[in-house]
Amino acid sequence: MNQETPRVDGRANDEMRPVEITPGFMPYAEGSALIKTGNTHVICTASVESSVPRWMAGKGRGWVTAEYSMLPRATTERVRRDRGGKLGGRTQEIQRLIGRSLRAGVDLDVLGENSILIDCDVLRADGGTRTAAITGAYVALSGAIEWLRANGRIEKEPLSGGIAAVSVGIVNDTPMLDLAYEEDSQADVDMNIVMNGAGAFVEVQGTAEGQPYSTEDMNAMLKLAKIGIDQLSVEQDRAIRSLRS
Amino acid sequence: MNQETPRVDGRANDEMRPVEITPGFMPYAEGSALIKTGNTHVICTASVESSVPRWMAGKGRGWVTAEYSMLPRATTERVRRDRGGKLGGRTQEIQRLIGRSLRAGVDLDVLGENSILIDCDVLRADGGTRTAAITGAYVALSGAIEWLRANGRIEKEPLSGGIAAVSVGIVNDTPMLDLAYEEDSQADVDMNIVMNGAGAFVEVQGTAEGQPYSTEDMNAMLKLAKIGIDQLSVEQDRAIRSLRS
Amino acid sequence: MNQETPRVDGRANDEMRPVEITPGFMPYAEGSALIKTGNTHVICTASVESSVPRWMAGKGRGWVTAEYSMLPRATTERVRRDRGGKLGGRTQEIQRLIGRSLRAGVDLDVLGENSILIDCDVLRADGGTRTAAITGAYVALSGAIEWLRANGRIEKEPLSGGIAAVSVGIVNDTPMLDLAYEEDSQADVDMNIVMNGAGAFVEVQGTAEGQPYSTEDMNAMLKLAKIGIDQLSVEQDRAIRSLRS
Amino acid sequence: MNQETPRVDGRANDEMRPVEITPGFMPYAEGSALIKTGNTHVICTASVESSVPRWMAGKGRGWVTAEYSMLPRATTERVRRDRGGKLGGRTQEIQRLIGRSLRAGVDLDVLGENSILIDCDVLRADGGTRTAAITGAYVALSGAIEWLRANGRIEKEPLSGGIAAVSVGIVNDTPMLDLAYEEDSQADVDMNIVMNGAGAFVEVQGTAEGQPYSTEDMNAMLKLAKIGIDQLSVEQDRAIRSLRS
Amino acid sequence: MNQETPRVDGRANDEMRPVEITPGFMPYAEGSALIKTGNTHVICTASVESSVPRWMAGKGRGWVTAEYSMLPRATTERVRRDRGGKLGGRTQEIQRLIGRSLRAGVDLDVLGENSILIDCDVLRADGGTRTAAITGAYVALSGAIEWLRANGRIEKEPLSGGIAAVSVGIVNDTPMLDLAYEEDSQADVDMNIVMNGAGAFVEVQGTAEGQPYSTEDMNAMLKLAKIGIDQLSVEQDRAIRSLRS
Amino acid sequence: MNQETPRVDGRANDEMRPVEITPGFMPYAEGSALIKTGNTHVICTASVESSVPRWMAGKGRGWVTAEYSMLPRATTERVRRDRGGKLGGRTQEIQRLIGRSLRAGVDLDVLGENSILIDCDVLRADGGTRTAAITGAYVALSGAIEWLRANGRIEKEPLSGGIAAVSVGIVNDTPMLDLAYEEDSQADVDMNIVMNGAGAFVEVQGTAEGQPYSTEDMNAMLKLAKIGIDQLSVEQDRAIRSLRS
Repeated sequence: MNQETPRVDGRANDEMRPVEITPGFMPYAEGSALIKTGNTHVICTASVESSVPRWMAGKGRGWVTAEYSMLPRATTERVRRDRGGKLGGRTQEIQRLIGRSLRAGVDLDVLGENSILIDCDVLRADGGTRTAAITGAYVALSGAIEWLRANGRIEKEPLSGGIAAVSVGIVNDTPMLDLAYEEDSQADVDMNIVMNGAGAFVEVQGTAEGQPYSTEDMNAMLKLAKIGIDQLSVEQDRAIRSLRS
Repeated sequence: MNQETPRVDGRANDEMRPVEITPGFMPYAEGSALIKTGNTHVICTASVESSVPRWMAGKGRGWVTAEYSMLPRATTERVRRDRGGKLGGRTQEIQRLIGRSLRAGVDLDVLGENSILIDCDVLRADGGTRTAAITGAYVALSGAIEWLRANGRIEKEPLSGGIAAVSVGIVNDTPMLDLAYEEDSQADVDMNIVMNGAGAFVEVQGTAEGQPYSTEDMNAMLKLAKIGIDQLSVEQDRAIRSLRS
Repeated sequence: MNQETPRVDGRANDEMRPVEITPGFMPYAEGSALIKTGNTHVICTASVESSVPRWMAGKGRGWVTAEYSMLPRATTERVRRDRGGKLGGRTQEIQRLIGRSLRAGVDLDVLGENSILIDCDVLRADGGTRTAAITGAYVALSGAIEWLRANGRIEKEPLSGGIAAVSVGIVNDTPMLDLAYEEDSQADVDMNIVMNGAGAFVEVQGTAEGQPYSTEDMNAMLKLAKIGIDQLSVEQDRAIRSLRS
Repeated sequence: MNQETPRVDGRANDEMRPVEITPGFMPYAEGSALIKTGNTHVICTASVESSVPRWMAGKGRGWVTAEYSMLPRATTERVRRDRGGKLGGRTQEIQRLIGRSLRAGVDLDVLGENSILIDCDVLRADGGTRTAAITGAYVALSGAIEWLRANGRIEKEPLSGGIAAVSVGIVNDTPMLDLAYEEDSQADVDMNIVMNGAGAFVEVQGTAEGQPYSTEDMNAMLKLAKIGIDQLSVEQDRAIRSLRS
Repeated sequence: MNQETPRVDGRANDEMRPVEITPGFMPYAEGSALIKTGNTHVICTASVESSVPRWMAGKGRGWVTAEYSMLPRATTERVRRDRGGKLGGRTQEIQRLIGRSLRAGVDLDVLGENSILIDCDVLRADGGTRTAAITGAYVALSGAIEWLRANGRIEKEPLSGGIAAVSVGIVNDTPMLDLAYEEDSQADVDMNIVMNGAGAFVEVQGTAEGQPYSTEDMNAMLKLAKIGIDQLSVEQDRAIRSLRS
Repeated sequence: MNQETPRVDGRANDEMRPVEITPGFMPYAEGSALIKTGNTHVICTASVESSVPRWMAGKGRGWVTAEYSMLPRATTERVRRDRGGKLGGRTQEIQRLIGRSLRAGVDLDVLGENSILIDCDVLRADGGTRTAAITGAYVALSGAIEWLRANGRIEKEPLSGGIAAVSVGIVNDTPMLDLAYEEDSQADVDMNIVMNGAGAFVEVQGTAEGQPYSTEDMNAMLKLAKIGIDQLSVEQDRAIRSLRS
């Protein structure tokens, strides 16, 4: 492992890009946030519905789900909109990941028969859009929970500690935190990690794009991820507190 | 005409909401702008492709077309994404209107075999999204034309004077300029007008939602539209000049 | 403006093509008509359903909507059927225009919770199919209303005066009434106008295909439209009276 | 077999409904016909394209295919248009049957690399629409072949004798020719038979809707079919001759 | 008719390929069978649902329907899965044929408001997949009926005698029983015949792929079919009895 | 961690279900295998095409991709076929995982401009279908590579060591290897691991369905996975060798 490899933007290998979370960015939504991680910018909104999908009705439990999309020019090459009958495989994977990750931070029984639909729309994409979406979505979700409480629709706290996500990877044989697009496209391993506030794993997805990786590599990446998640949690807390004040 | 009818936001009947155009808002696109008209905010991008649709290939002419979409929480009630196989009728009408209007301001022969695809994504919707989209799209289009020229791919000027659009309508028997959503939903007549820089009509679409309207009503609305378009043209010029400096 | 420009078929600029409306053309439908305007032939049927779309149920109001289609060889080149998942933009625009125009002539409260679905199928197309469809559809609609009354399902008259439509345009700098296909394809301006029996505007849609147009041009076209609509109203009345006798 | 069973419309069991074929009904198509069999009316057009589907290109052979559709109010209850992504199973079966039947009457090698697309649009439906469509389509096809010859695009005769079709069935234990809708809906057996001019079978499709049927029943139905086809061939010849004169 | 024509695999013209039916092949289904006819192998399952489609609810009658699919490499060239919005015409025809044929062997009133959905999945295809599917599906259906009886959900016997199917055809002017793929692809006539246990016809579908065929040809093919169906019935009975023991 | 927890089928926590791989199961495919892991049975086929997808043509590299499907009654409740326009998110995720995993074991440059399409069809599902699919697919892939070599279309060996996959999880606080369906549905953590023959990770996907998990849990699961993969590799080798002999 070569700690001297210079990164695209001069960061240290265990350094996140600058993170900025603006809560309440979309004023018509019950909860929302704009999250910026370097040049990756994602708008997250949380919409409350006082019902649940048909297949889970009548059980007194709530539901949280997500949709993900990119503006066509979030990227340097225009990307087609997901408008055909077939929703792209990548989009579906990301949507499922976001929804699953957030549900790991919510007590659906306490939520009652309410649904929260998270929309993540990428304004600008420079790597790590799915992890930024999860991190921002948790702030939007907190806003929606706050709204439900303010409107007397829930009483207890359904949130069980924060959910945040970060990407790590191995580039030029070097484990790195928070890959930018250019790094990601050269990475041998690309790993997305979702953790809760207590530092336990909610989801680990690590793919060898080039060379398969060893247990040692994995451990190095998991350590980097913890560093990033800790920083993101601080930013999330700050954003959520500002919502309540 | 009753000039005393108070408007939702206290404006005079011939008064636009505050207009603000930020060119270059989407840095990865060849041309872009964020346009705000009161609480209606639309991101417009222009993407250049060095080819044309198959049905018009080999004629030496270019093409300009548009897509329109709203973020789900651009509105107070969440609106579903246009993801099914069927693209909604309203969306298609708006897309066709934007593309047709912009083409009226471009000499496609001078453009050569290049396509410019305009994306209009509504961040926030408070009435008049399609007219704001046209007005902002013209600035994005100008940026893309500038880019083509800077890259030596066109020589002559294909733009033949600005294209801008505004809504007018009749609310409580009173003709009004630039309807906000609440006004629009009560209007007897809703009219969208697209003009070029010389004050000639590119498109007039006037629909009686309630009472059919007289020739006199129509003339009053056309006059208001001219007032609005003149103001929008000034803002467009300012934005375009700032792009070139 | 050059009044001497000879038209394709020798008509005067303010002259309609021969109009012929055959009510009851489709005997299985509650209301129907075949309308011929020169070589543009459209079958219009009105189907009654004793329910309304879900989103408007329980309000005691009715609904009128429309579908539009062309037989593949209504035109000189075969046109594909609208069978894919995506309904073409042009088709959707026309369908929405027909439905909206007819609703402007019906008191939906008087109609009660009944729906009338208008089908417009073009047998032969020589320009002006959408305006012919609206004009013929009103006769079909009248037949269906008559049927509802005869079957004791409505008591008062929901129709508030006729709805008819015509195209006008500017060809070779000359405003002309009722454009045939060949004229339409060379027109600088193409305008579709829907009026009610009292001569008020229900819908005005004017598009500059070539040169943008002046207020003077618009006024000239609106005058021509009035001439055409007056003639169409006479034919509609004749057809509707023959239904009742 | 009970020859006294009275039929819906007083016909004898071996009697066709009145048949009327109007060639050239759709003037913009290369070939066309309106066929009426009692209250079953079908518009058939034949469109020529100077190419073949990709999978058969370069073999010097032609292709004939068909589409089938009903106007929504061809029937007493409105039928939805085939507009969704899924084309109904019944529609597909009929289209495939029409195409296959016509190809049995054409020498595709003589046709050369030309395609003929047959459109069958049902104006009014009272049973036997698919067989009427085949019979009428052959006249439209003949018109298109004539057009190809007149335009010097084929030299030899690709038609190898007429193709016509008729329905037969067993209603109340009685074999009957040319079932009207009311008979068809009560039939125990419903059989569609396509024959060529020489009286040989091109297609036989017999379905027991109620009781399975014996070989004797089948033979009785085949005999009735021959009677009907002979009469249809006479009408086809008359129509085709009138085209050539 | 030339009895000496040697067949692909040395069979006599009136000889079936070896038939083998394994009941209970899919242990999670209420009824199932694997049928092998030479190299044509089809898995048939029957799934019971205690409801019927909406359009027939409340009448106390049951329903039987079918789906048909091939594994992509059931054939020597890979065939695409039916995954697009459009289900292929061939697939729909076969599904409809299987469902219709089985319903001819079931008293839907005795079945009560239960549905049985038959799935036919072709593992290997060497001609005659649709007829093998029908023959095997009847065994799966019998298993599901047995299951309904064992679970006390029906009392009387809804099955009215077996349903089996076989293909026949004319190859090199010779009528043949049970065509293998290679024979089928050279056949002048291809006929699928479905019969019940009493030897009456449920469905006859005969298509002239090459030369149209005479009444004599038809009679020869029907006789061959009877020979095949008799043999298949014996195999079905054996399989069904083994289920009950 | 409680090693005494009895498993559903009496296995030890680090014990695989019986594994059986039958190569050449689908004789018409270039490569194939049936893999059984307990009651999970998957048919895998590999189809060779002498071209690559358009987006990668002309680079001299090959491609490997996969499709995954379940027979409707692979499960105790019937599952709908993926036939609508929308391919389910779960299906897409699995297909992408299979394709990506196999590509990690192939040198695409050595493969040349050939595509190998893997089809995985689940006959019976009792947990772990996606991992069984990957393991079986590698055997099918090997068969196809062998076929390419035997046909002189590749020279060097494109396979870089085996790819196999297994599921692990935490059930009742106990890490377990190769979860059966009943275990999987109660698991707190469900992890799918893909490794190459050298014991390096190709893909790790671990999801907390219930409680988030610690680094210690993860390490325990990774160790179990290694045990399973080693056993699967032995079975793969045996199957592949039998292909070559």
